[in-house]
Amino acid sequence: MDRIYKVAVMVGSLRKGSYCRMLARAAAGLAPPSLVLDIVEIRDLPLYNEDLDGASPPAAWTAFREAVSKADALLFVTPEYNRSVPGPLKNAIDVGSRPYGRSVFGGKPGAIISLSPGALGAFGANHHLRQSLVFLDVPMLQQPEAYIGNGGSLFDDKGSLKNDSTKEFLQKYLQTFGRWVARQTAA
Amino acid sequence: MDRIYKVAVMVGSLRKGSYCRMLARAAAGLAPPSLVLDIVEIRDLPLYNEDLDGASPPAAWTAFREAVSKADALLFVTPEYNRSVPGPLKNAIDVGSRPYGRSVFGGKPGAIISLSPGALGAFGANHHLRQSLVFLDVPMLQQPEAYIGNGGSLFDDKGSLKNDSTKEFLQKYLQTFGRWVARQTAA
Amino acid sequence: MDRIYKVAVMVGSLRKGSYCRMLARAAAGLAPPSLVLDIVEIRDLPLYNEDLDGASPPAAWTAFREAVSKADALLFVTPEYNRSVPGPLKNAIDVGSRPYGRSVFGGKPGAIISLSPGALGAFGANHHLRQSLVFLDVPMLQQPEAYIGNGGSLFDDKGSLKNDSTKEFLQKYLQTFGRWVARQTAA
Amino acid sequence: MDRIYKVAVMVGSLRKGSYCRMLARAAAGLAPPSLVLDIVEIRDLPLYNEDLDGASPPAAWTAFREAVSKADALLFVTPEYNRSVPGPLKNAIDVGSRPYGRSVFGGKPGAIISLSPGALGAFGANHHLRQSLVFLDVPMLQQPEAYIGNGGSLFDDKGSLKNDSTKEFLQKYLQTFGRWVARQTAA
Repeated sequence: MDRIYKVAVMVGSLRKGSYCRMLARAAAGLAPPSLVLDIVEIRDLPLYNEDLDGASPPAAWTAFREAVSKADALLFVTPEYNRSVPGPLKNAIDVGSRPYGRSVFGGKPGAIISLSPGALGAFGANHHLRQSLVFLDVPMLQQPEAYIGNGGSLFDDKGSLKNDSTKEFLQKYLQTFGRWVARQTAA
Repeated sequence: MDRIYKVAVMVGSLRKGSYCRMLARAAAGLAPPSLVLDIVEIRDLPLYNEDLDGASPPAAWTAFREAVSKADALLFVTPEYNRSVPGPLKNAIDVGSRPYGRSVFGGKPGAIISLSPGALGAFGANHHLRQSLVFLDVPMLQQPEAYIGNGGSLFDDKGSLKNDSTKEFLQKYLQTFGRWVARQTAA
Repeated sequence: MDRIYKVAVMVGSLRKGSYCRMLARAAAGLAPPSLVLDIVEIRDLPLYNEDLDGASPPAAWTAFREAVSKADALLFVTPEYNRSVPGPLKNAIDVGSRPYGRSVFGGKPGAIISLSPGALGAFGANHHLRQSLVFLDVPMLQQPEAYIGNGGSLFDDKGSLKNDSTKEFLQKYLQTFGRWVARQTAA
Repeated sequence: MDRIYKVAVMVGSLRKGSYCRMLARAAAGLAPPSLVLDIVEIRDLPLYNEDLDGASPPAAWTAFREAVSKADALLFVTPEYNRSVPGPLKNAIDVGSRPYGRSVFGGKPGAIISLSPGALGAFGANHHLRQSLVFLDVPMLQQPEAYIGNGGSLFDDKGSLKNDSTKEFLQKYLQTFGRWVARQTAA
């Protein structure tokens, strides 16, 4: 029987009407049967401060760390803030990476979809995030890259993905990611 | 009479015993008379969420924005978290950059000192931050670069900078920064 | 009388029909009277090798170094190769930066226009080049950034820029660059 | 019987006494039996120019492309020039990546060792190269990262690696790389 992989999805924007969140939801519906995508929320994580990371860290940190720990793989869906990773997403990365030696990310295969309202596809966020994931030992899907532009035109009034070429791209992208995950986690 | 410039100092680490904070304090004492350095705190800023950024944004956001607005120049003193800018500092950048068209950073000359406990001097944080500051229209001091390694060995028990070569470096660095600030803000 | 500034223009692509070269030529015609743009060729520079950089370096290196030395400012017009700076342009940067202590770039104000056939505007090349220019002490124009997409649709059969909005953008961009150059080189 | 993998080693510096070349040679001797390391030379590659890349490309390009094609995996050993990848190495990357659709790198697992005479370990070169390798679909070894500082102190008069901790590090690094290569190329 084929194995099923849990994918922890982290969305870089906190606003309710976030296009990235819409895209993450669309991705969950378009993924192959081998991948189960679930969003792990990052909005309640206090700013990382090592002084708080002792015997009783903030409950939100612990919950986040446990949720990611249970996943087999990582998918980041993110906008770009100021040509880099949004602060809230970087904070989640930092929370999950500590305390030293107990990162919850290490070894879990990962992929990034970046999305912008304009043409540039959040390239800057995409690659800055990749630099962190080298340190975190996340084997990264390299191709296809996913830079999605004109985010505002892709969804209908209910937040559903209406753009067919984006649907098709996502479907193939997630199939490739599924194979990547299977390879990296094979015995 | 020579002009005095207010420099808003942002420290990338929140822990009390932060070497970056020690370094920022040392810098305040070593700066030339033309520069007055004051730390603007970033620890109480809620994670950036556009939904909260309407008529009544969080008080901590407003206070941060006002503090930076009053400054003439920007100095970042930061460690590296996961080969990039610490989440809390990136969050502060994002808060100060919004709402669209009302960034508090634009046009203020800036400089970065990055510090690591190991040898690499937080190079990754330094340059990721620079990429954001392009977007924010901050004229950046290019040389000298300031990558400070072995952070743990530079301070005494009271958190004072004890390393003479680092003192000397900082003093010259801040003199060069003072000239940079004066040039960028000249009428 | 207003000062005139010589701008050394370096084009990142070597092919004859290069859109970047067309754009560089268009820029020369759209620049304000204070800026005189001239392309400095990089195609004949042997690959940088310190062993060759003694008493009699390759003539092409010497010619390039002298041409850049005479300029007051630097403009890079570049495509992206493999998400970074094209090898030939990076080689020119390396040639101009050596021997140690005798870089021809230091202190000359700079700007980057990046161009791609697709949508992403050669973002990766633009920012990788900026990282080198920190080391080379080139005060960089931060805003506006210039990421030009769909390069293939902007020129007519003779290689002239036919797109009006791009013309307008370039004109304003070069005016801003002119003010930047004047500020950085003021006594 | 265990499979043997050919590793194409590309060295970023062209000078004869290059520490990177010494390190590459040391690596060849310290690699596990499953990896056979051979340097592929990049010094004779003409600067990439698409106009030359037709029916009869330069012989050096063809030879380089064939040599890399025959390899199972890629190892880059590079210094940093101006906070980025040396021009000659970036040129080799560009040559091997073209013509479009016929890159010789795609799918071959890769790793980077970066080396500097100073403390910073050529961090900037290491990560800029990684950005290109995303585009080239090279599955990258993430951990351990290899930033080697104080390059000048590691070798004896004959260019042999004399530093025991570096030897040990290299040996473990190449064992991990061997497992990475095996995983990425498994049927």
